[in-house]
Amino acid sequence: MALWSGRFTEGADAFTQRFGASLPVDKALYAQDIAGSKAHARMLAAQGVIAQEDADAIAAGLDGIKADIEAGRFAFDVNDEDIHMAVERALIERVGDAGARLHTGRSRNDQVATDTRLFAKQRCSDLMRANLALRRALMMQAEAHFDVILPGCTHLQHAQPVLLSHHLLAYTWMLARDFERLVAARRAADASPLGAAALAGTTYPLDRQMTAADLGFSRVIPNSLDAVSDRDFLLDLSYACSVSCMHLSRLCEEIVLWSSSEFGFIELSDSFSTGSSIMPQKKNPDFAELIRGKTGRVVGDLVALLVTCKALPLAYNKDLQEDKEGAIDAARTLEDCLVCTAGMVETMRVVPEAMRAQAKKGYLAATDVADYLAKKGLPFRRAHEVVGHLVLVCEQRGCGLGDLSLADFKAECELFEADITGALDLESIVAARTTEGGTGHAAVRVQLAQAKEVFAADEASV
Amino acid sequence: MALWSGRFTEGADAFTQRFGASLPVDKALYAQDIAGSKAHARMLAAQGVIAQEDADAIAAGLDGIKADIEAGRFAFDVNDEDIHMAVERALIERVGDAGARLHTGRSRNDQVATDTRLFAKQRCSDLMRANLALRRALMMQAEAHFDVILPGCTHLQHAQPVLLSHHLLAYTWMLARDFERLVAARRAADASPLGAAALAGTTYPLDRQMTAADLGFSRVIPNSLDAVSDRDFLLDLSYACSVSCMHLSRLCEEIVLWSSSEFGFIELSDSFSTGSSIMPQKKNPDFAELIRGKTGRVVGDLVALLVTCKALPLAYNKDLQEDKEGAIDAARTLEDCLVCTAGMVETMRVVPEAMRAQAKKGYLAATDVADYLAKKGLPFRRAHEVVGHLVLVCEQRGCGLGDLSLADFKAECELFEADITGALDLESIVAARTTEGGTGHAAVRVQLAQAKEVFAADEASV
Amino acid sequence: MALWSGRFTEGADAFTQRFGASLPVDKALYAQDIAGSKAHARMLAAQGVIAQEDADAIAAGLDGIKADIEAGRFAFDVNDEDIHMAVERALIERVGDAGARLHTGRSRNDQVATDTRLFAKQRCSDLMRANLALRRALMMQAEAHFDVILPGCTHLQHAQPVLLSHHLLAYTWMLARDFERLVAARRAADASPLGAAALAGTTYPLDRQMTAADLGFSRVIPNSLDAVSDRDFLLDLSYACSVSCMHLSRLCEEIVLWSSSEFGFIELSDSFSTGSSIMPQKKNPDFAELIRGKTGRVVGDLVALLVTCKALPLAYNKDLQEDKEGAIDAARTLEDCLVCTAGMVETMRVVPEAMRAQAKKGYLAATDVADYLAKKGLPFRRAHEVVGHLVLVCEQRGCGLGDLSLADFKAECELFEADITGALDLESIVAARTTEGGTGHAAVRVQLAQAKEVFAADEASV
Amino acid sequence: MALWSGRFTEGADAFTQRFGASLPVDKALYAQDIAGSKAHARMLAAQGVIAQEDADAIAAGLDGIKADIEAGRFAFDVNDEDIHMAVERALIERVGDAGARLHTGRSRNDQVATDTRLFAKQRCSDLMRANLALRRALMMQAEAHFDVILPGCTHLQHAQPVLLSHHLLAYTWMLARDFERLVAARRAADASPLGAAALAGTTYPLDRQMTAADLGFSRVIPNSLDAVSDRDFLLDLSYACSVSCMHLSRLCEEIVLWSSSEFGFIELSDSFSTGSSIMPQKKNPDFAELIRGKTGRVVGDLVALLVTCKALPLAYNKDLQEDKEGAIDAARTLEDCLVCTAGMVETMRVVPEAMRAQAKKGYLAATDVADYLAKKGLPFRRAHEVVGHLVLVCEQRGCGLGDLSLADFKAECELFEADITGALDLESIVAARTTEGGTGHAAVRVQLAQAKEVFAADEASV
Repeated sequence: MALWSGRFTEGADAFTQRFGASLPVDKALYAQDIAGSKAHARMLAAQGVIAQEDADAIAAGLDGIKADIEAGRFAFDVNDEDIHMAVERALIERVGDAGARLHTGRSRNDQVATDTRLFAKQRCSDLMRANLALRRALMMQAEAHFDVILPGCTHLQHAQPVLLSHHLLAYTWMLARDFERLVAARRAADASPLGAAALAGTTYPLDRQMTAADLGFSRVIPNSLDAVSDRDFLLDLSYACSVSCMHLSRLCEEIVLWSSSEFGFIELSDSFSTGSSIMPQKKNPDFAELIRGKTGRVVGDLVALLVTCKALPLAYNKDLQEDKEGAIDAARTLEDCLVCTAGMVETMRVVPEAMRAQAKKGYLAATDVADYLAKKGLPFRRAHEVVGHLVLVCEQRGCGLGDLSLADFKAECELFEADITGALDLESIVAARTTEGGTGHAAVRVQLAQAKEVFAADEASV
Repeated sequence: MALWSGRFTEGADAFTQRFGASLPVDKALYAQDIAGSKAHARMLAAQGVIAQEDADAIAAGLDGIKADIEAGRFAFDVNDEDIHMAVERALIERVGDAGARLHTGRSRNDQVATDTRLFAKQRCSDLMRANLALRRALMMQAEAHFDVILPGCTHLQHAQPVLLSHHLLAYTWMLARDFERLVAARRAADASPLGAAALAGTTYPLDRQMTAADLGFSRVIPNSLDAVSDRDFLLDLSYACSVSCMHLSRLCEEIVLWSSSEFGFIELSDSFSTGSSIMPQKKNPDFAELIRGKTGRVVGDLVALLVTCKALPLAYNKDLQEDKEGAIDAARTLEDCLVCTAGMVETMRVVPEAMRAQAKKGYLAATDVADYLAKKGLPFRRAHEVVGHLVLVCEQRGCGLGDLSLADFKAECELFEADITGALDLESIVAARTTEGGTGHAAVRVQLAQAKEVFAADEASV
Repeated sequence: MALWSGRFTEGADAFTQRFGASLPVDKALYAQDIAGSKAHARMLAAQGVIAQEDADAIAAGLDGIKADIEAGRFAFDVNDEDIHMAVERALIERVGDAGARLHTGRSRNDQVATDTRLFAKQRCSDLMRANLALRRALMMQAEAHFDVILPGCTHLQHAQPVLLSHHLLAYTWMLARDFERLVAARRAADASPLGAAALAGTTYPLDRQMTAADLGFSRVIPNSLDAVSDRDFLLDLSYACSVSCMHLSRLCEEIVLWSSSEFGFIELSDSFSTGSSIMPQKKNPDFAELIRGKTGRVVGDLVALLVTCKALPLAYNKDLQEDKEGAIDAARTLEDCLVCTAGMVETMRVVPEAMRAQAKKGYLAATDVADYLAKKGLPFRRAHEVVGHLVLVCEQRGCGLGDLSLADFKAECELFEADITGALDLESIVAARTTEGGTGHAAVRVQLAQAKEVFAADEASV
Repeated sequence: MALWSGRFTEGADAFTQRFGASLPVDKALYAQDIAGSKAHARMLAAQGVIAQEDADAIAAGLDGIKADIEAGRFAFDVNDEDIHMAVERALIERVGDAGARLHTGRSRNDQVATDTRLFAKQRCSDLMRANLALRRALMMQAEAHFDVILPGCTHLQHAQPVLLSHHLLAYTWMLARDFERLVAARRAADASPLGAAALAGTTYPLDRQMTAADLGFSRVIPNSLDAVSDRDFLLDLSYACSVSCMHLSRLCEEIVLWSSSEFGFIELSDSFSTGSSIMPQKKNPDFAELIRGKTGRVVGDLVALLVTCKALPLAYNKDLQEDKEGAIDAARTLEDCLVCTAGMVETMRVVPEAMRAQAKKGYLAATDVADYLAKKGLPFRRAHEVVGHLVLVCEQRGCGLGDLSLADFKAECELFEADITGALDLESIVAARTTEGGTGHAAVRVQLAQAKEVFAADEASV
């Protein structure tokens, strides 16, 4: 013993205590732990397993502990391995034998699963609210700049002009899907493991339906082995956060691009930019970059939990102590990112003239010219070639398609007529995209109404 | 040009063609591509964009191509970049100008998104069926060995005896959650991007509702930019596969353990074991190991797509060509793993006597003794200590708790009475766990009925 | 049996054979397998374990099989589980009992490890060559456009002007580190497991040093259990590929940005751009996007192998059959990406005037003005503030710092003197950065010489 | 402004300050930051950029700050964004203008890169020491139980008997490779970015070689853009940690298995086991499970950084602020895991009789019987079949191969002679594996000497 303990700079006992402890992480769950214990005690009394006075003493003791924790008065002991032990120890100190009866018919295995599920449900709801705040900011900007035109890109090359409102709304739909994933994660968490005990249920006449209802769970987990070892709900939460962060990384990439000197499409508010310690002129889109970068940690959190769960036999294994930190981090990171992005979007200044200037570059009318010919009966593949030639002509002359004369058009194809020359301004091109879901003004107006409808429904479901 | 082309061992053009091509991967989507094109042509004719004869010629041409592909008669050209080009080229060769009109009001961007979504929907349904097959196998074994007792473990240490049926049913609940994730992935895929064109909609009077309905999509994607760049449905599918594979890795870990000489709880059928090239006596649980190992590739597929999507600006970017291979691989891997595990589980021979022999080791009655005392009024934490002493006594004598006399019990605590000695056989211990979801025989019978109910509902929803 | 086999659409035996087989993947290792077998046979004869005639017959048989495989004449049998079985079966068919003696003192476990290590070594060398090709292309462009100035960015905001040569050379240093990781991966693979047999060594007087030397391994693995279960060398290879792909994703991101209408810094050659099926004017940087996107799959390959290896007990487990596909994919992907990027870089057209025009925007002289003051004794933090004010003045006037008069400068700070006005043109600013490793012309010339030196050393070490 | 700030529960400014701050993470680098600043100031004075008195004042001020931080007296201000700003602010408060001159010719970009590299180098050395401690513990147990035999497994099926010393030494070789990866990571970190300034070098006559030497860096980074944006050294560190954690997960999986009732091969010391809150008899291998589980978080840390770095353009981007937390976590986690595993291994009690009892099961002599025949001239594939039959005979009789009579052997094959019966006890089988690196006693003795040699060399290189 002397031998190995020499290895531990901090002393062997101190080391194993610190290394094995989860308190620094799971004390975030104190409220859930206390709620779970109160519900368990109430039920034990209702079932006659403990006396009503014991349940009352337990409830009062737990309320006092909660108040102390929230007031910063609670002394976490270095011997407390986790929040559950910390609370139980304090309870026994306060209410004596009644406190020692709390753990009847319960194990830390079902207790920790219960606490974690309550916590996950709460965090899903928080994230839903933050999700809605960003959608609101995007819709606000879409409405405020409804008619602004910018170059729509594929491959970051100008493709066709689109409404800024259409572009911003694209992100609301991603976020609406993120909302659904959060709903799914919350539903996954919404099942009570309490009463599964260590792994096999107990010999006490527990009423699992009662504790489940008391804690707001909509159902009871039907298998005790599964109840103590299932962490799918944390995976679902981490996954929902990963995809949503990935979506934010796309929006933030565009914010970074649009803030650059080359694009100049937007100017971020000073609150969401920072300067340089060496270059006085800089105004950096730091927060957009930071959010883009944080995608990494959230994906890392998801991978971590998948790796940890791999190949674990039934039922509870200590590996699962690693479950909470990543999920808590993923949820907090996403919440911060959503809040920050909402602020950035809401306060950014749009520069319509810069968008418009760029929208005039790159022959954005080309598809329309091809469509024009196709509608006159030319097979689309042939029309595609004609426009290719017209673009070459423009490149040689350094002009746009809208600058060509009717004669220029006719030189390439006899099907062109006088109406071609008036149809190639940006507004006409955009307006012509009347397809459902397209960028035409009318279609976007319908889309905005749809987005608001989904928003309202989601808001009602938080 | 001469300079760099020298670098390419295969010639520059051949290199870029091969490297940029997606045909080897996306030809798996030929049926979806043809179905999508037929629906698009029908709609174009209905809307008066192309003539009905053209639509008919297109449909006939596509049917012929499909028949040729399925008969292995279709010549994929080295110049075909992807399945869409391959089919369109062949169509134009077959039906001329009508074929050249097919692409009117459509882009490869919405076309590929449509094909991929149809494919993903199909694969989700396939996976649901494979998921059900494994659940059926597990329930079959649970019923066949309902009363068999094995040591329930936490930390891979014997904890309390459980019914094998209870243990096997735990996996059916994991799989039921996997089923829900597949439903969610299918729902995510179930929206039509067709009509979004390149990114902005088109100037043709397309009826997106018509093509959506024709192809079996339940709704239309409301934003064209989102329609061509959203790959969430593939992430959802890959994620569903990852979690399900992780669950299988847990079951397979147990199959490997149980097949070992030390456990000896089961014997796999010869069909699911293999020998050694050097050790004639070996009978290895190869398939269980292989499935456990394949968790890695499926998680890798998920990570790959998340990384690829990070920080992409709107709308379509070529990075997204990398979307399909991983998702296809994840789905095929999971399907194989589910099918194989079903076969393994269904054909494995259970060795109840080995399970029982182990269940007698490790003082599995300890919790019951503690509960006994707690029910007599001793606070649980005190009861816990008493049993700790009793276990020490047993260890010194090399016996089990059931082998102690009443005097032995009373020596540790006066609360013990005569009824303790009859209550510690395995059957009694198991039966005493009457909690809902616990391992007691009656509770497991209820659980089995629940599992069947969920199974029937899921089966109806494929 | 009848029951479960009904689940398998392809028949149970066909299913397990396909699912368990690694031949589709590991037939890529045929040459290594044959080389390994020849070396083993030679050694067996030298040690007197088999007759020399047998070794000769084996060698001749294997040579014939290799020739047949390379000529496309070799019939892979549906019953061949892997390349090792395929070759051994064919050998026995060809040379009879001599062939049946080949496997003496060998197991598939050490055989497959040997083959895979030989293969990995080869692929590392291939990747080193492709790495050098890209560095050569970057250095060529750096020399060809040595003096071209572009805006150096942090946060994608203009910061200070830099030489294009300096910017391009930054990537050669990343690639030089990638080269080192490939060297490390090759060194990791460069150890012979042959002779470890199944897991414990054999009872035959094998000479492991002889086979190792014969196969070009620089050392023998000292522990047989480790020899058959170590896959670190594949992790090292996958990791080297992941980081290198990440570096390429950074370069390709810049290529995509620089090719955009807003930047316009470069024009890609037609060989490395593609058009659109609907927009005739598009010239998309498809390959740069594709390479950026492929980072995902390579990182996915790395994660897959790490997950697969987690928690495997000694020694060989079938999980490890999953080791090769990802590593092969990672290496092939990186090689293609390196080759393609080299072609893109070598053939891209630089547009110096566009870079210069942008370099004039964004007050890139600001740091120099601050340094000017600091050199006159003003503490840097104070100088930083003065320049902040000057930038504001410029913004109000819509001019650059170089356009201000001496009076303007003096109005903010008395320390400015006449020499300030001549010091703010781009060339002067760049030239003033004389620090070792900085962007000053002289410093970059030194750096280029260093880069060439490292290149030459690396080239010599492939 | 009022609008969005309403979203921030904590107030907009408080939110952005908290969200953008890295102080909670990077204050771990205070010592490196102060060392870097002192070296920079010394060099500035030596080069005549600042006065010697200023450099002296700076050094004294920084020493005071360091002392205050270490004594817990330093007041971190809520306005300090990061450790660099915190230290610089305090310095200016303490020494006035001299402090304000410290940042001359330096940017936070090269400063933070310098600090992080110094930190990473230190952590690599710490990890090397922890790595050696575990190897020492393994070698100690290998020597203490040199002759103990246990069943060597492939597929977790008994394969051939091996020495426990051989088995334990396998892990020392994995750890020796881990050591090499740490050396590579340290070498990657060992290059000075100081003097790169923001991105382009500076106009001051900095002596980068001087600061590099002063700080113990062995070289200067040759490109300033690369210097401020390269995080490969953190990837190398995270990767080294990931693989080493994966190796520990393998060892810990075996510790968990061996501690189970079914195996019973070892008993962990009480210091490295814990009890259950509900089951008094439990003695759980918690720490082995926890370490196995922590593989997830370390792999997650690696993935996080790879994702964050993907597609970042040159040079510094704020995304990189996310670089440190994961690497710090990976290093701390691995160090704890190594220390804990060393303690576990060193204090575990080996149960040789349990190992031996299992080694007698599973026909571990089968390979030897086959080798016996092969040495008599029977082709190995034929010998393999003969032994298969003998195993069947044993299974029918319920005996081992060593229990068969010569007649039994001869009934299967005429080549068997009297010497077969004496050759099948465990010691003989093990001893017969004389191959270099095999499990024979002599070979393992050689191997142990090799392991010690490598250990000594590694120890000398920390």
